[in-house]
Amino acid sequence: MAAPVRRTGGRSAAVLSSIRAAVEELVRERGAERVTIPLVAERAGVNPTSVYRRWGDAATLINDIATYRLDPDRPIPDTGDLRADLVAWAGEVVEHYRKPVNAALLRGGAATAGERESDCLRNRRAEATMLVDRAGPGSPVTADEVIDGVIAPIAYRAIFLPWTLDEATAGRLVDRLLPTGRSA
Amino acid sequence: MAAPVRRTGGRSAAVLSSIRAAVEELVRERGAERVTIPLVAERAGVNPTSVYRRWGDAATLINDIATYRLDPDRPIPDTGDLRADLVAWAGEVVEHYRKPVNAALLRGGAATAGERESDCLRNRRAEATMLVDRAGPGSPVTADEVIDGVIAPIAYRAIFLPWTLDEATAGRLVDRLLPTGRSA
Repeated sequence: MAAPVRRTGGRSAAVLSSIRAAVEELVRERGAERVTIPLVAERAGVNPTSVYRRWGDAATLINDIATYRLDPDRPIPDTGDLRADLVAWAGEVVEHYRKPVNAALLRGGAATAGERESDCLRNRRAEATMLVDRAGPGSPVTADEVIDGVIAPIAYRAIFLPWTLDEATAGRLVDRLLPTGRSA
Repeated sequence: MAAPVRRTGGRSAAVLSSIRAAVEELVRERGAERVTIPLVAERAGVNPTSVYRRWGDAATLINDIATYRLDPDRPIPDTGDLRADLVAWAGEVVEHYRKPVNAALLRGGAATAGERESDCLRNRRAEATMLVDRAGPGSPVTADEVIDGVIAPIAYRAIFLPWTLDEATAGRLVDRLLPTGRSA
């Protein structure tokens, strides 16, 4: 018998993407809280043991997969106007969580959150910081204010009130956040 | 053999409170995502079948129990000043979620959210509406703005960044929400 050819890099990348696809399908079909590692492994055609070894349990797996959903390398709006950039950026986040599978992954991630900031949140915070820094020392808001005033209500609605996210949500939240927008 | 005396009201109330206590202990000990109905039933000394029959699964049970945590009948601050009332009210919510078990229950509830507003959120929204209505037609904010600007960031921090909730959180959020507070 020939020993199997080792193609670790390519193979592990292919395995990861089939696991990711399986998690997303199963979350869409069953809801995050009813996804188990044996189900994911069967759907992905991998050995459950390797999934348990890497993630430990389904909630941790879903939390990890959820952090891949919004590409951290996508271009961030840069129109030269903070309000316009924030509205465009927040609009992307709203559109992301209007997809039921992404909201379900966020709920699954919430179930295991609380010990450290997830990659997903770290990425949103890094983006908020970049947008605020671009506006310079005269920025009317801090990155924390953007997280509390824009990302938190979007995530809260995505988790608890997904049907309230619409095309107007991002603009409304940014208008409330930026002083001159309060007249709006 | 004497037939057991029926004290349905009292008995079911006692069973419910022992189940509630068991859920809270187990969530504190294991984290919401590792609590199962058999564990809850064993801890509460009740028949798992009756727990399955009433709640269906552990996530639904935790979500339901979580809605009991902030007493909807507690008095709501009424100083005659909207800002002071909002700060005191939001401060209660922050203190509630600074307790790890309450944040853990909120995470457990988040995992099964998304189909309808939970009793817990309905209660916070009713309280926000009461506070805003008291301020009259001249109120500078709507109940939705209070939810997005105060409750959402508190819940977001409780779920994802619990270590960032402190004594100053409520005042900071209300100051950002109310126009005259923006100078703060």
